[in-house]
This record gives sequence, structure tokens and C-alpha cells, in this order.
Amino acid sequence: MPTLSPDDLRLIDAYWRAANYLSVGQIYLLDNPLLRESLRSEHVKPRLLGHWGTTPGLNLLYAHLNRVIRERDENVLYVTGPGHGGPGLVANAYLEGTYSEVYTGIGENTDGLRSLFRQFSFPGGIPSHVAPETPGSIHEGGELGYALVHAFGAVFDNPDLVALCVIGDGEAETGPLAASWHSNKFLNPRRDGVVLPVLHLNGYKIANPTLLSRIPEEELASLMRGYGYEPHFVTGDDPAAVHELLASTLDKVFDEIAAIRADPDTRPAWPMIVLRTPKGWTGPAEVDGQQVEGTFRAHQVPLSGTRTNAGHRRQLEEWLRSYRPEELFDDDGALVPELRALAPKGDRRMSANPHTNGGLVLRELVMPDFRDHAVQVRERGADTSEATRVLGVFLRDLMRRNPANFRVMGPDEVASNRLSAVFEETDRAWSAQTLPGDDHLGPDGRVMEVLSEHLCQGWLEGYLLTGRHGLFTSYEAFIHIVDSMLNQHAKWLKTTRHIPWRAPIASLNYLLSSHVWRQDHNGFSHQDPGFLDHVVNKKAEVVRVYLPPDTNTLLSVADHCLRSRHYVNVIVAGKQPALTYLTMDEAIAHCTRGLGIWEWAGTTDGEPDVVLACAGDIPTLETLAAAKLLRAHLPELRVRVVNVVDLMRLQPDTEHPHGLSDGDFDALFTTDKPVVFAFHGYPWLIHRLTYRRNNHRNLHVRGYKEEGTTTTPFDMVMLNDLDRFHLVMDVIDRVPHLGGKAAVLRQRMADARLAARQYTREHGEDDPAIAEWTWA
Amino acid sequence: MPTLSPDDLRLIDAYWRAANYLSVGQIYLLDNPLLRESLRSEHVKPRLLGHWGTTPGLNLLYAHLNRVIRERDENVLYVTGPGHGGPGLVANAYLEGTYSEVYTGIGENTDGLRSLFRQFSFPGGIPSHVAPETPGSIHEGGELGYALVHAFGAVFDNPDLVALCVIGDGEAETGPLAASWHSNKFLNPRRDGVVLPVLHLNGYKIANPTLLSRIPEEELASLMRGYGYEPHFVTGDDPAAVHELLASTLDKVFDEIAAIRADPDTRPAWPMIVLRTPKGWTGPAEVDGQQVEGTFRAHQVPLSGTRTNAGHRRQLEEWLRSYRPEELFDDDGALVPELRALAPKGDRRMSANPHTNGGLVLRELVMPDFRDHAVQVRERGADTSEATRVLGVFLRDLMRRNPANFRVMGPDEVASNRLSAVFEETDRAWSAQTLPGDDHLGPDGRVMEVLSEHLCQGWLEGYLLTGRHGLFTSYEAFIHIVDSMLNQHAKWLKTTRHIPWRAPIASLNYLLSSHVWRQDHNGFSHQDPGFLDHVVNKKAEVVRVYLPPDTNTLLSVADHCLRSRHYVNVIVAGKQPALTYLTMDEAIAHCTRGLGIWEWAGTTDGEPDVVLACAGDIPTLETLAAAKLLRAHLPELRVRVVNVVDLMRLQPDTEHPHGLSDGDFDALFTTDKPVVFAFHGYPWLIHRLTYRRNNHRNLHVRGYKEEGTTTTPFDMVMLNDLDRFHLVMDVIDRVPHLGGKAAVLRQRMADARLAARQYTREHGEDDPAIAEWTWA
Repeated sequence: MPTLSPDDLRLIDAYWRAANYLSVGQIYLLDNPLLRESLRSEHVKPRLLGHWGTTPGLNLLYAHLNRVIRERDENVLYVTGPGHGGPGLVANAYLEGTYSEVYTGIGENTDGLRSLFRQFSFPGGIPSHVAPETPGSIHEGGELGYALVHAFGAVFDNPDLVALCVIGDGEAETGPLAASWHSNKFLNPRRDGVVLPVLHLNGYKIANPTLLSRIPEEELASLMRGYGYEPHFVTGDDPAAVHELLASTLDKVFDEIAAIRADPDTRPAWPMIVLRTPKGWTGPAEVDGQQVEGTFRAHQVPLSGTRTNAGHRRQLEEWLRSYRPEELFDDDGALVPELRALAPKGDRRMSANPHTNGGLVLRELVMPDFRDHAVQVRERGADTSEATRVLGVFLRDLMRRNPANFRVMGPDEVASNRLSAVFEETDRAWSAQTLPGDDHLGPDGRVMEVLSEHLCQGWLEGYLLTGRHGLFTSYEAFIHIVDSMLNQHAKWLKTTRHIPWRAPIASLNYLLSSHVWRQDHNGFSHQDPGFLDHVVNKKAEVVRVYLPPDTNTLLSVADHCLRSRHYVNVIVAGKQPALTYLTMDEAIAHCTRGLGIWEWAGTTDGEPDVVLACAGDIPTLETLAAAKLLRAHLPELRVRVVNVVDLMRLQPDTEHPHGLSDGDFDALFTTDKPVVFAFHGYPWLIHRLTYRRNNHRNLHVRGYKEEGTTTTPFDMVMLNDLDRFHLVMDVIDRVPHLGGKAAVLRQRMADARLAARQYTREHGEDDPAIAEWTWA
Repeated sequence: MPTLSPDDLRLIDAYWRAANYLSVGQIYLLDNPLLRESLRSEHVKPRLLGHWGTTPGLNLLYAHLNRVIRERDENVLYVTGPGHGGPGLVANAYLEGTYSEVYTGIGENTDGLRSLFRQFSFPGGIPSHVAPETPGSIHEGGELGYALVHAFGAVFDNPDLVALCVIGDGEAETGPLAASWHSNKFLNPRRDGVVLPVLHLNGYKIANPTLLSRIPEEELASLMRGYGYEPHFVTGDDPAAVHELLASTLDKVFDEIAAIRADPDTRPAWPMIVLRTPKGWTGPAEVDGQQVEGTFRAHQVPLSGTRTNAGHRRQLEEWLRSYRPEELFDDDGALVPELRALAPKGDRRMSANPHTNGGLVLRELVMPDFRDHAVQVRERGADTSEATRVLGVFLRDLMRRNPANFRVMGPDEVASNRLSAVFEETDRAWSAQTLPGDDHLGPDGRVMEVLSEHLCQGWLEGYLLTGRHGLFTSYEAFIHIVDSMLNQHAKWLKTTRHIPWRAPIASLNYLLSSHVWRQDHNGFSHQDPGFLDHVVNKKAEVVRVYLPPDTNTLLSVADHCLRSRHYVNVIVAGKQPALTYLTMDEAIAHCTRGLGIWEWAGTTDGEPDVVLACAGDIPTLETLAAAKLLRAHLPELRVRVVNVVDLMRLQPDTEHPHGLSDGDFDALFTTDKPVVFAFHGYPWLIHRLTYRRNNHRNLHVRGYKEEGTTTTPFDMVMLNDLDRFHLVMDVIDRVPHLGGKAAVLRQRMADARLAARQYTREHGEDDPAIAEWTWA
């Protein structure tokens, strides 16, 4: 007894043909959308852009999932790994009516079809990929590797959701995708939804076969079982046979899913599907004597000469007519009713699933009052606290108030970054085996730890894109691992700001700790502050960088970031015991301004002789120590200390929404006095932000200049000339007419550096006189 | 019949104890290295840095591999995934005598032991990891994920080499590592060596259990079989039992390897080992009432209070004495002869394997003459050629002359980047199934294509680090995927420059094509020129960036990079038909200077009114077109055109070895005239390189400002104001007193932009008048 009745089969095939027809039409046609006349040169686009190869497979799955959704009333979203398949996903959104709802200019009629076709990959139209402009998409897919991890991110804390995740066999070769399969060890069938991976083996990439299509099937099955899945193979190139096999397989798979949901405490082998169909299936079998269907030659545009080559154009027309458009669309160009009835209704349409437009389902975080976590600052720089440890308590309270709306991700570094208080509220997510002695590990956990920055980033992206909130904490150096993922997310944020029907989502928040200045123990490989440079290259409207100098400022900044929308926020903060400077009220005022003069640290409230600027906790510490040395030894020198929390304030207001006006900048940094700037990261980032400022020529920046090893904390700053002694020397070198007393002080500073280094090399630790330095 | 005789067992255990003793000694001891007296506070380091947890497993494998090497005369190198295990690898290099050979100050006696212990993780000493300073290391391992891919890189074209690759179960969670297992599909048992992966399941990371230790063993076995390996499990916590099991397993495994080598044409299931032993094995079982051995608490320093806490110190002494140092070292502190005899001899010592000091075994490339590939330039800008296609022919000849010393890596983009000529000489490496119709695919191939930038980068790193040469070609945008891998390689290069016994290796060469300006068809996700910014953050002594403007300059630059040593060279070059400007002689002269005035493109050979500078093929095209417009319409304006090939020339000579002196810079860019600079990448990179230059205040840079979509090539430059028309407008806006004619021209330019955009939106392609623009 087949799963599909003859009529079901006829209809599902027709729906698939309709999607394929619309896909080919988008790639090729400027006009004559329903082939009401013979195809002429001017009906064809002059420049053919798009990818056919993956599209028929995507369309096939779409049609079949529609049946499952209708029959079982499942809540499904469709994550497209092969992002090139833009024509297919656009076609399906159009067939379901969603497209015309959000783009009212593109109606369900012949004119609408013409516009739909013309706009695709056309200047002023829509991109060629499953872009943010595509309803139902939660990622563009152009950079391969992130489909599966996004799908998992989408279903965490969404128990009724199923993420169908199509993984191209090209994408399956990437590292992030290879690791993503293991995400099932972090999924709890009771509180989370379901990911249904479909590995689409169409056999070829751009110019090569794919690995997984060229190993024995039992080896592939073994791989999937090793990843914790039970594979179901759907193989074929005869549409009718594949329809039936795919339909029956999907029924089996959704039965298995139902069984797992019914017994959520038994560790399941999750079902997955291997769909092996030809690349460019139903397209031209052969072009100019070379096989195309079923090979890498079907990757992009199988027929390239359709404007000028009559043979190609004829082949295109045959290809288009093979879908029998006259059976699919009525005289007005609307999908015929019996096919229209195959699409799910309303929010059940995958292209209209509200989870794919995360801002729509976003619930505000219930925020604890960060002021309640303030550390007392009776005297500036007299006491120490561990900034991230205090933040951990705030995050614990936040997680308590938001039990299914906020997650923390970390590559095995949540405790190392001293956020352990969160474990008072929740566990680490873990659905694999547990043993006695395990530390806060369980299926209900909302802290996600895995030794993969890719998975942390991808899970969080998926979680945010579907309308939730979170924080990613990482060692600073290794966050570069996700540079490229950040690029794609930032591009998504930038683009969606200008798509009216897309609602803003929560910001992507990074907390980078164990930073460059405090990786003295792990050495050079763990020292790199360059993520800031990378982030600042993104569009100004979506990026924010914060360097809170102490605990209360970290709390204030974190509160601000967690409330924000549609940004990438990067916070860099230390985890070691460090001096506290600002009361909570002061911290809030300072963070609100983003930067400001710390009068109490300088020697003047008027015009200074020199400005000591700083951004970052360690640079602030060294700057304050330098200012103290100057106060003590050159009291007549008028020193102004400026601390920067919000790095984007340094840019001109024409370049960044947070940028200071030139007047405000000049008021802080003067127009003609030396500025010695101690910066957390690479020094040239400060120059890049300030090169248009009036006083830029007097700006001298110290920062990390790629010098480090396993040593002591103070030796690390000395290796990079960021230490207090060197900052004093920098001041003396730059302020004119300081006289003999300054020269003596300069020599003392140089001697102090030598002595500090000598002490370290003898004792293996920093001179306690420096290590225990306080402001008071 | 056991594999190990009782005496073998006794000896191998003693060797292991010796390595463990030396490891613990390095972490803890300042003095009293052989415990000739009771341990006192001052014998212990004040600051304990190092990682014990992974070390005993690393030492165990080392001792057992020594036996295999001795008995079978195998050529083995040891790739350490868990880079934290520095103490273990240093200990073994010391036991083999290699350490004292390269560091003559550290002898094989009591004084040497004291120095060995003291220097570890000590200021002025050696780093805590398996750093470049460690003999036998080919990578630091601090950033996890790259061990296996490096091991494969090392054995390509090294048929007699075995790379033992220890993979920590933490590292195994990373994406790059998860993908690396599939490298076996690119290995040819006939021409390549062998990788023996050992997955070391010690169960825990910093604060968490590891995934692969918490799935059923049959699931893990299935995973390994799915990856194409036959797993061998070695599990235990009783040393004697584990010794015997590991020894017999290694014998079996090396027999299997021999069988595969004897039958290289049958697709093998490569053996691998799962070694499941306790984390921190043989260390303190319990500290302060908490279990340590066998848990994540053994990750770093199990006893933290040894300087001040007498109980901890007593426990440390017991721990050290449990290895019975008095049996291992003689009165002078030298390893006893019967243990010394267990180490392989000379180059067979893993710590002295010449392949681990690649520069030692480096063979010069046999270079074809790149001049033979020159394209004829009869008239500047009259003809077009595809730069990378021509380069492909040069690379073909290079590969012909260097059949086992040079590889090309690419993420399925070698043909897409138009280097296809290489396939006239060699195939794509492929040991999985082949089918009729496959395009240049075979086990002997030396072009390595996989859809993973991580694997391409990692294979090439491993190949270079073991003394060979290569090129990595990628789409420009997606090279960010390996930002972090580049960091680690650049750190390795920087550090090894200052280690006298390390010989320079070949440079890591990138060819970035399908770049930001020619990804109009794939759209925004494929557009990102920021890798240059990332590279320029690395230490100046190791990074070089080239932007050849045409075919002959690309050939000259490529030749230069391929001959160079110990750099990271980034070349950005287009693949599309593009104008050629320089004859080969001119190209060589221009590339040798790195930048220069193109007199023929300007209107003056004297002092200019304005400088039009450019770097990159598309910016050069637009700049030349702008210059031509200015020549035609404002002939009285004195325009100088400066083209930059070697980006590092822009930096001051105090900042980069290639940097221009200020005098030379001023001679090119003037000290007071406007400079309109058209740049390939983000505009602020030019500012960051030139902010100290005299004329910086007059520098105006156009580049990619994160604006793009699927559109036409000329629309892409217009979207970012880099087009010829806008450059002319920029000139007019910046040169004073140009008068009414210029105002009219400015308006014409603005109109031309509108018209161009309008044309594009109507026709779906660029106005042929622009697209077919030539210089003549």
C-alpha cells in the first residue's frame, strides 16, 4: 500500500514542477513568464546569475514537507544549507502566497510572475541566494557550514518546533558542519524541539564530486550512527519512485519523532535522511554534447547562451515546458486551486513561520536590576573584585527570571571566565551520559558548553534569529575562530535593518575574558586582541565595542547590551581580581557618556599639559599608576586622565552613531597637547578610529604589539611598553620643556623597568610592590 | 604470550616514570631536582603554571612509540594535539638527548635538570606549551583543532613517514578536527606516508566531560568506521595492563600499516587507536577531599598550595617519589643507561626527526621562468587577459618541475579561480570512489580540493612545516574562515625566526581571487576584503601583501612569493578578463619597487596638482579611467597616477621592512597635494598604514564600505563610490580653484553615475560603453 495515492502523487509532483518552473523562470526569464508564446531572445535575461543544481532537491523537500505539515499539523521551519538555492525558496514562498503578502508589488498573477522572474539576481532586485529578503529564511547560506548548528539553535527552548535542515553534501565537508552533528548531545526532547537533518547528496560541488557521495553507503550509515542518528536513505532519479519513497520515509521519520517526544527520557537515535538525487535533476540532460544533469556542470546555469544561441534557447524552452506550466497556473497566472490547497495555511507555511522572523516572537527579557549587584567602592582603587565573577551573579538572576528565553554559550570557559554563579540557577546542557561527580550537567541546562567556538556561535545565532536572547563568552584570542561567522551574521543584521517586514532581533553579545593581558600563563598562542579590529570593519550601524574598566562599569555595560536590539556587542573584561574605581552611580554616568575625564586621577581640572587616555581594564590600571607617579614626582605637570568605555565614541559622528562630534572630542583630548593612549588591543585601531581628529598628530598609542610568551602579568605589559613606567617615559618624551627633574624621573622609570624584569626573572613572579599596587 | 617480556615491561614503565617525573618537576620545582633532600618551600616555584592532566598519556604514547621505532626502524614524528602537554614533550626530548643538543646550557646532569625544571613557564624561560622551542614539535597546539590536519599535511609526499597524531578528546569537539578525519580520502598509500590518529579519551576538558567519552563505545566505533578508520580500543588505569595492551595494539596497528603499504591500491580502512586512560593519571588521587585523578580537576596544577601549604607540599613530594627517581637517574643526574637505550638513535628520535624542523629538509623549488608566461602588451590597456588563468599555466609548469615538493590547495575553487591549467600536469588528489566523467581526479593528484578552508589551510601548514612548498587559493571573502589558523601560523613564524636551531621554511602563500569586486553574482555574503586587515595585524617581519594590477605583475609577484621564506604572503588578483598595462620588464621593475608613478597615465612628469593612487586590479582600472576622463576634460590639471603593488611599502620604514622612508613617500605622494586613493579593501586600512605620513591629512581613500548585493560589476563599484566617475568628482572636490569647467564636469560625472545605474536597472547588465572601456 503506497503512502501516496495516485492523486496525491500527481498533485505533489505538480507542486514540485510548479516550484521548479518558477525557479528556472527566475534564473532565465525577463518576460513571457508563462510561455504563452515561443521564447524569444528578448524574453531572456542578458546576464544569467543563479544556481540551478541544488534547487530541484530543495523544491522536492519543500513539497513533501508541506504534506507532512498539513497532515500532522507540525510546526516546521526550513533551514537551507545550500544557500545558492535562492530560486527554489523564493518560488515556494511565492507558491504559498507569503511572497505576495510581504512584497505587495508581486502579485499572484502574470504580472506578478513577470516581476518575480525579472527581479531575481537583477540590479535593484533581489539577491541570488536564500537572502534575508527571502521569507522563511533564517540565514543566507552563502558561506557554507552553519545550517545544522543554526537549526539546533532555532529549536532550543522551542519544544513544538521542527527544524528541517537541508545540508548540501558540499557543506557537509566543512569543519563547522562536521562538528554540528554532535549538537544532538545538547538537545533535550522535553524542553527543545526537533532537528531533522536531510543530507542532500547530489554528488557534486562546483567542480568536484563530494566526499560523502563517494564512500560506500554502509560507511556513510556508520558515520551517521556514530554521530547519534538513525539514517534513512532515499535514493533515485525517477520522480514517481522518489516521491513515494520520500513520502513513506517522512512518515516513518515523523512517527519516530513522535515516539521520541513521547519518551523523552530515553536517549534517542534521532532520525535523519540521506536524499540522493541527481544534481540539476529535471534540467537539461546534456548541453553541447556534455552531460549536465547529474554532474557538477549543473551547479549554476546549465544553458549559458540562451540570449544569443538559438539552440540553447530552444533547449531552455523545452526544459521550461517540460514542467507543463499550463497545468499549473491559470489564465491569469495564478496557481491552480488544487495545488494551492497543498500549501499549509497561515503560520504553518514554512515561509511564514513566525520563528523565522525572530523579532516577531521576541519576548523582552525580564531584567534583574544590575544596580543590586554593585560592588561598594568606598575609596577609588582601594579594593579589588573580579568583574566577571560579579557579572556571573547578575547573569544567574537573569537566567532565573528568563527560564526559556536566554542562554549562555561558552567553549568550556564559562567557569574559567568566572561566571560560575550561573550554575546556581541552571546546569550545563548535556544529554549524553553523566557520571557521579559531574559538575552541574544535565538535560535541562541552559548553559551550553562545547569545545567549539563554531558551535557556540552558531547555536546562539540560531537562537537569536528565532527571537530569543543570549551571551557568548570566550577567551579573547580564540574568538577569531568565528570571524567569518560574525561576518555573515553582521551582514544579515545590516541587510535586515532595511527590510520593513523583518522585526529587530536581540543583539549578539560577546563577553571576551581571559584576555590578551591575562594569558601570561598560557603564553603567546592565547594572546590576540584583534577581534576588535575585525568587528570594527563591519557596518557601523550594527557594531558596538565596550571596554569597561572595572566591575560596576561591566555591570552597567552588560545591562545595556542585553537590552539592545540588532547589534553585535563586544565586551572585553578581565576575570582576575582588579581594582574598582567607580561607584555604581558613577559607573552608570560614565558608561552613558561612553568616555570621560576622571578628574580625581589627574592633577588638573583645567587645561592639561598632557592627556593620559586609556581603554580596557589593564591599560586603565597602568594609566592610573602612571598618573600617580606623575602626581608624586612631577606635581607641576597638569595631567588629564580620560577613560574610554565605548570605543565607538572615538570615531567621528559622521562615521558611527556613537561617534563624538569634533568639538566634544577636542574638549576631551585637546587640539594641541600630547595624548598618550594606553589601549587594550592593537594600537593602530585607535589611530584608525581617530585619524580625522584635530589632535591626531599628537596622539601616541601603546597597546599589544604581538609580543608575549608564558611569563608574569606585569612582564606582559612591559614586553609591549604598556606598563606604568613606560607610560611615564612616554609623557616625559612628549611634553616639552619639562627640565632636569623630568629627565631624572625618566631614568628612574627606565631603571624601574629593568628592576621589575630582573625581579621577575629571579623570582618567577612579579615584584609584590607592583602586583599589589593600589590607587590609594 | 604477552607482547612485552617482564623486562620490557619494567623498562618501558621506568621510561614512562622518568618522563612523568620530569614533567612534574618542570611544573613544580625550582631546585632539589632529584629529591636528594626533603622538599622545602623554596624548592617549589612561587607561581605554578602548566598542565598536568594530559601529560601522562602523552608520555605513555611516547615511550611506546619509541619501542616501535626501535624494533621496526620506523620514521615517526609526534604531532601533539593537546598542546598544553608541554612538560611531557620537553621531558621526552630531554630523555632522548635532543634537548641538550640544541640547548647546550641544559646538560644531562643534575645542573641540567635544575635548569630544565626552572626554565619551564618561567619568565625568560620556555613557554608552557609544546611551543616552537620544543624540539620535535611542528605546532604549538594551544589553539585546539589542527593536530590531525597538520599530521596529514606532514605525510603528503613523504612516503616513509608515519605521523603519530595525538588528539585530545577536547580538541575532537572542534569543527576543524571533526572534518580532518576525512583527510584519509586524500591520502595515497603509494606516494604518501601514514597518519596514525590516537584519540586520547581522558574524559575531561577544563571544566566539563568530553562528548566522545560519554557516548557508548559502539557509537564511537561506528563514528570512526564512518570516518574510514578501524578503531582499536586501549582502555585502563592499571599501568602494567595498559602497557601490555598498548604494546600489543601498536604491534597490530603497525602490522596493518605494513599490509596497507604492501597493497596500496586497495582502499584501506586505516587503523586508529582510542586510548582511554584517566586524566592526570599517576597524579594525586585526591586533594583536599576532592577527587582529582580521573577528573577535570587534574587539568592544570593538581596541588596549588605547595609553596605555603605543607600538606600539599608533602603530597607533591610523595607524588614525585612515587616515580622512584633514584632508579631512573644516576648520581650525576643522568638517565641510567638501560633507559637511555630505549630511545631511538639520531634522526629516528621523534624529537630530532628532521621533518619537524622543515627548513632542514627543504629543497629549493625548481622554478620555471615566469617571464616565459608574459602576456604581450603592445599598447597599454588595449588588450585583456585573465590574470589567474595565465598564472595557472605558470603553476602547471612549476608542478611539472617539482613533482613531490609543491601542492596547490583550494576549497573547490581552483577551477573557479581559473587555475585549471594545473590539471594538465596533475589531478586533484582523490582516494575515494571515482566515476566515469570525473574531471582530473585521482590518487596521485597534487591539487587538493575539499570544501573546507580549514583543511586546505591545515594541510598546507603541515606540508610547509615539514619542509615543502605550496599555494592556497580561495575566494577572498571566505578566507576569513581561517583567520585564527593564520594567527597561530604567523605566531609560529614569528617565534621561530628567533630560535637559532630552527631553519626557515617556505612561505605560506595565499592567492585570493573571486574577490570582493567580482562577486557581484553571488552577492553580499561573498563580499569581504577584510583578510588584509587581519594579516596586517600580524608581526611586520612575517607578513607581506601584494595587489598586482594586471597579469604580468601577478606573474612577477607570484614568482617572488614562491621563492621567499618564512613569510605569510597574500596576493589578491582577479580572474576576469581585465586590461593589461605593463610589459614584463616594466612589471618586474614595478614589482621590485613595490609602487611607483605611472607617468603614462597622468598628465605631468613634474609636480602634480593631485595624486590619483590605486592598489588592486579594479581600483587601478577605475583610477586609470578617471585619469583619462580628467585628461580629456581638464587637460590643464596636472594629475599623477601612483600604483601600489606591495601594500607594505605604504608603512613607514620604522614599522615594516618594506616600508618607504618618509622622503621617498613624500616624493611620490607630495607633502601638500590632495591624494585620492582607490583601494581594493576597506578604506581605513590605507589610513592605518599611512597615518604618520606628512601628507596624510590630504589623503582621501575610496574602498569597500560594506555595500553590496547581487548586481553588476560596475554597480558594485558605484555602490561603494569607487567608480571612475566618483573618483573624478573626488578630485574636483579636493583641488582648489578649478573653476567653472570643473563644476560642469562634476555635474556630468554625477549624471553619468545616474545614467549608468539607470541602464543597469533597465537592462540587467552594465552599459557596454563602460564594460568595454579600454585605456587606449
